[in-house]
Amino acid sequence: MKRKTDLRSISWQDNCVVIIDQTRLPGELRFLRIKDVHALWQAVKELKVRGAPALGAAAGLGAYLAVRNSKAKDFESFFPGLKKALRYIATSRPTARNLFYGLERIERIALHNRSKGVAQIKRLILKEAQRIMDEDRVSCRLIGEHGERLLKSGDTVLTVCNAGMLATVGEGTALGVLYAAQRKGKRIKVYACETRPLLQGARLTTWELMKHGLDVTLICDNMAATLMRQGKIDKVIAGADRIAANGDAANKIGTYSLAVLARFHRIPFYIAAPASTFDVSIAHGKDIPIEERAAEEVTALFFRKPVAPERVKVYNPAFDVTDQALIKALITDKGVIRPPYHRNIRRIISLKRGHATE
Amino acid sequence: MKRKTDLRSISWQDNCVVIIDQTRLPGELRFLRIKDVHALWQAVKELKVRGAPALGAAAGLGAYLAVRNSKAKDFESFFPGLKKALRYIATSRPTARNLFYGLERIERIALHNRSKGVAQIKRLILKEAQRIMDEDRVSCRLIGEHGERLLKSGDTVLTVCNAGMLATVGEGTALGVLYAAQRKGKRIKVYACETRPLLQGARLTTWELMKHGLDVTLICDNMAATLMRQGKIDKVIAGADRIAANGDAANKIGTYSLAVLARFHRIPFYIAAPASTFDVSIAHGKDIPIEERAAEEVTALFFRKPVAPERVKVYNPAFDVTDQALIKALITDKGVIRPPYHRNIRRIISLKRGHATE
Repeated sequence: MKRKTDLRSISWQDNCVVIIDQTRLPGELRFLRIKDVHALWQAVKELKVRGAPALGAAAGLGAYLAVRNSKAKDFESFFPGLKKALRYIATSRPTARNLFYGLERIERIALHNRSKGVAQIKRLILKEAQRIMDEDRVSCRLIGEHGERLLKSGDTVLTVCNAGMLATVGEGTALGVLYAAQRKGKRIKVYACETRPLLQGARLTTWELMKHGLDVTLICDNMAATLMRQGKIDKVIAGADRIAANGDAANKIGTYSLAVLARFHRIPFYIAAPASTFDVSIAHGKDIPIEERAAEEVTALFFRKPVAPERVKVYNPAFDVTDQALIKALITDKGVIRPPYHRNIRRIISLKRGHATE
Repeated sequence: MKRKTDLRSISWQDNCVVIIDQTRLPGELRFLRIKDVHALWQAVKELKVRGAPALGAAAGLGAYLAVRNSKAKDFESFFPGLKKALRYIATSRPTARNLFYGLERIERIALHNRSKGVAQIKRLILKEAQRIMDEDRVSCRLIGEHGERLLKSGDTVLTVCNAGMLATVGEGTALGVLYAAQRKGKRIKVYACETRPLLQGARLTTWELMKHGLDVTLICDNMAATLMRQGKIDKVIAGADRIAANGDAANKIGTYSLAVLARFHRIPFYIAAPASTFDVSIAHGKDIPIEERAAEEVTALFFRKPVAPERVKVYNPAFDVTDQALIKALITDKGVIRPPYHRNIRRIISLKRGHATE
């Protein structure tokens, strides 16, 4: 069996993007070698690689795959091809801020080095993509360190979707907090929502928590309220795909539901995400674009035969937005941000952002 | 295609219990002919027939199947066999009040007629089972009539699991309200929660609503909160498997979650159920026994391959209890019951119960 440290959701090896094909988990651990941007786009679209921070890395590496064979002789002929690739990658998933953050960083590094030769710009693009990955690993570690202080030994944590090592380049955001607590010797019990329709909780979160030796129990999404009422949940921690300037956090569909249920049952609800997830250009969560996905994900995918009548209408948003008022704190790599968010997010994330992206 | 009126979830035909095998819907409409109590027990356990009111009918007919070939010559030798059958049927599903209500009625009719010959007692048992079915048809009609007044044309209703014609002998409880509103010419739009793990909403509710020509959209359970926040849900109506004296209502897992979410979003939440669902011997919902079912329903059933790691821990309660404080009104065949429930339930249900079961 592979060691945990070999299990990178995404990495750059032998001139290829290597990803764990997450659509095959938990049945099979298979690595995919991706050599061109179209295959990468497909892998992102089909959720073979997923998770907001991992998508930041995918964006950066995808941009490099797109331009590495460019025949352009100077920046002026090189840059339009890069721009086209960045726009193309941007169409793969609309909600994750980190995806766009990765694309912006690649564009910036190219523009910043426009006076250099094309070969060197290409090298700098790859270096920037690798730096995005390195920074995410550090971010995860810091999120874990900041967040684990909010947990005490004996706590039972509810989580949704997968915000772990499979969703990031490091060891995760929400789950990174749990791993950090575990390293500190705290006993943490976890309930994982299966997270319909794509079952990331059932397939991925249980898999990686069990690999890490954490005590995890799988539930269907509609059972969370019952556990909360029974007093079995001490904290809820979820990841985020994009966080607005006021703290509203878009995350996997079902997160908002858990936040409301946690509020009703007086359970603290936390969002864990790196600074790159924040989009201070968006004032409120309602302006975050929410991806709607195919009806078949609900009616047929995974199933032996369809579980709903043919031609039934289906509503299938991939994400929802959790009002900042329902979030007890935002656990980030820059520290734990507490309300009032409209002030503290700008102070903690925005001011240091120039630094982080330098 | 069968006409709607031929689609009885359960009926007595040619000396057999005939049920629609609900595990085969929506792919296939298949009727099962059940000739002995063991096959009936199995069909109940495996949810081939389900829904609290339909289980009341199944209990009555099952008791008759168990004793119809009894060789007993007098009541004293006949009754222990009947008692054994009633106890056996009671082990099939623990939560549905109507199941036990059916069993109690059969026992009572036998005891009441102990002076008669065994052949006649058997005939009276079958007659009582048929009366349970007739009464349920009437109950559904009355629930529909009482409940539809709470709806106005243009309303969008959210429902969970299946509380329709497939769950009853008549045209349903929660869905019966919608059908009654439809007959009155009201335009009603429905969102159906898929209702994990057994997907009764996806498989059954969409199927029967589409057959009735109602506008239905399927969602995953974790999407309900998002619809509520978007202002797309005017009312929530669910069925019930057992209702305590104080109005706490046990229903399919996920119902309590919807009730909390509805309260948060200031949306009226209704329970629709016949008088036979009320168990005034139970003061509070916490004393209602909740069935826990197999882990495989969550991890493997329906799926092409397992969606969770082997040996993962799973929590799989089939029902939850919704606090009476979250229920705007109880829609019953005796009328709409409003708070204070501890007084009004006894007044409306209990006092008339002797009459209903006479």
